[in-house]
Amino acid sequence: MAENNKEKVTEISQLGEFGLIDHLTKDFPLKNESSVLGVGDDAAIIDVPEGKEALVTTDLLLEGIHFDVRYVPLKHLGYKAAVVNFSDVYAMNGTPKQITVSLGVSSRFTVEHIEQIYAGIRLACENYGVDLVGGDTSASQTGLVISITCLGEVEKGKAVKRSGAKETDLICVSGDLGAAYMGLQLLERENQVAAQSGDPNFQPNFAGKEYILERQLKPEARKDIIEKLNAAGIIPTSMMDVSDGLSSELLHICKSSDVGCRVYEDRIPIDYQTAVMAEELNMNLVTAAMNGGEDYELLFTVPLTDKDKIEKIEGVKMIGYITKPSLGAALITRDGQEFPIKAQGWQAF
Amino acid sequence: MAENNKEKVTEISQLGEFGLIDHLTKDFPLKNESSVLGVGDDAAIIDVPEGKEALVTTDLLLEGIHFDVRYVPLKHLGYKAAVVNFSDVYAMNGTPKQITVSLGVSSRFTVEHIEQIYAGIRLACENYGVDLVGGDTSASQTGLVISITCLGEVEKGKAVKRSGAKETDLICVSGDLGAAYMGLQLLERENQVAAQSGDPNFQPNFAGKEYILERQLKPEARKDIIEKLNAAGIIPTSMMDVSDGLSSELLHICKSSDVGCRVYEDRIPIDYQTAVMAEELNMNLVTAAMNGGEDYELLFTVPLTDKDKIEKIEGVKMIGYITKPSLGAALITRDGQEFPIKAQGWQAF
Repeated sequence: MAENNKEKVTEISQLGEFGLIDHLTKDFPLKNESSVLGVGDDAAIIDVPEGKEALVTTDLLLEGIHFDVRYVPLKHLGYKAAVVNFSDVYAMNGTPKQITVSLGVSSRFTVEHIEQIYAGIRLACENYGVDLVGGDTSASQTGLVISITCLGEVEKGKAVKRSGAKETDLICVSGDLGAAYMGLQLLERENQVAAQSGDPNFQPNFAGKEYILERQLKPEARKDIIEKLNAAGIIPTSMMDVSDGLSSELLHICKSSDVGCRVYEDRIPIDYQTAVMAEELNMNLVTAAMNGGEDYELLFTVPLTDKDKIEKIEGVKMIGYITKPSLGAALITRDGQEFPIKAQGWQAF
Repeated sequence: MAENNKEKVTEISQLGEFGLIDHLTKDFPLKNESSVLGVGDDAAIIDVPEGKEALVTTDLLLEGIHFDVRYVPLKHLGYKAAVVNFSDVYAMNGTPKQITVSLGVSSRFTVEHIEQIYAGIRLACENYGVDLVGGDTSASQTGLVISITCLGEVEKGKAVKRSGAKETDLICVSGDLGAAYMGLQLLERENQVAAQSGDPNFQPNFAGKEYILERQLKPEARKDIIEKLNAAGIIPTSMMDVSDGLSSELLHICKSSDVGCRVYEDRIPIDYQTAVMAEELNMNLVTAAMNGGEDYELLFTVPLTDKDKIEKIEGVKMIGYITKPSLGAALITRDGQEFPIKAQGWQAF
């Protein structure tokens, strides 16, 4: 694993199941009024305020599929596992309020390892004002398993779904795309180099690549963008977060909303470090930005009449527009050609 | 695996991730008014009715730790995975309303296998009036992983926690205990006999043991007991479901409520088939009933003044009483001796 824990090693069996859960969850005081009862009973109790609806989303992260503990520090892993759930709640125009965390851990993990995962979860909870209200830790015969469920709140009837995009709506995206994917490529390369060097003290070279590394290891949910949109009086017609990649998400919105879309290649926001890394690895930059995934940016559509308002919001870029469904989803390249957008999908099986 | 699927084998890769989720979740129409938006967006939307609080509980089931697909049919596995979550909601005096289901499946599973798991989940949802509102299926490098989160409702302020037991309260338990554990012993024995016989057509002998088998493979949540308690005007002072075993749960209630307890060995409800199986396997019957787990019965405490009401409720037995904390938790044997109650705990690490 990416951490060194030379100071202290506590076997999980020393604490036992209930001792471990008590130990891990004792530093999570409840802060939200809606969190009536947290960890330690058959279920948590949540008092959703009048005039609000509850949102619920869940993510299952499996070692070897969604993360690799050889180069992902466990604290970052915990942080990311929580934040990707918060991102789903923001993508509904909501505010995350509570999470439950279930871990499956094999015997090669010590109490200190699990503490690191929880330290990351705790930091994410603090940064986003979320309470941990349920937790369970179980043995796993195989790899590390992290299952997080997040509850959020949204004004009644104000949730933004994927299904509301209308013809002529503008397609917008926050931040930049492809950086998390390039960060992963960098981590994998340095991990390979380390393995080949055979040097246990090998130091990976991340100089000048801090941004893409952070995008992969410590993504943030775009709470700020939701706040800016609310402040500007903009209610997106459809919204989702970019977890699988822009192509895939555009197709989701088109399918759910029964529309088509046109997206301009030269409008896709890409960071300089992402471009440099793609160049270094001889990879297609637009493919990385369209299909890389794990950006956790917000993809949303707004009525054409909101164009002026959107232009004033820093960190949001208009990348195309919604069409009638018969036109399908297509990318317009720099030289004006149209290519159908395809989801790279998921080839893990 | 316990099923034979000679008719049809569809590789998961033929459908892809999104195709698979669509395929699995299309037969789950939303029935509850509170289920505003189900599967297919970043989060589900739940409208908790005025005057109610939401309950949330989650369970992570890992192959080889919590179940063994060599002798647990996948449909039963799906049913049980859902029901154990419903049980947690009932144990708070609530009603389960929604679940989300995340699966991690390795390549040895086909679409038909996953359909069987979902068929069990669907049956459980139908039987208990619960909506599936979120689902995710991911590849797993190792075993089968099932993570289910359940949301429920309870009248505001009426949730029954583990922490309300008071001195002199009566300790009650529904149904009988130890049967699920003995069912597991039976399954493991027949599985060993099958392996030793080398006969692919080996038929396990379950005659006269149907009850303990069903208690292991297809447990039910005690919705009926909650309804009877409500009808009788009984509000337990504390309650939880028996998942880890009576000993462990009694200690939870004592710790949460800061009380002690006395439980009478001869009052512990045990089914005839459980006793026969323990005899056959030369196992201590009381140990099985106290520590077996997976019974999903309700353990609760009521004020002494409810004694007459409790006696009229079929399927509930008074097994002891709550004491002051200094007396600790003890089992009183048939010959009047006191033995401290200890949690067998969880030795899976």
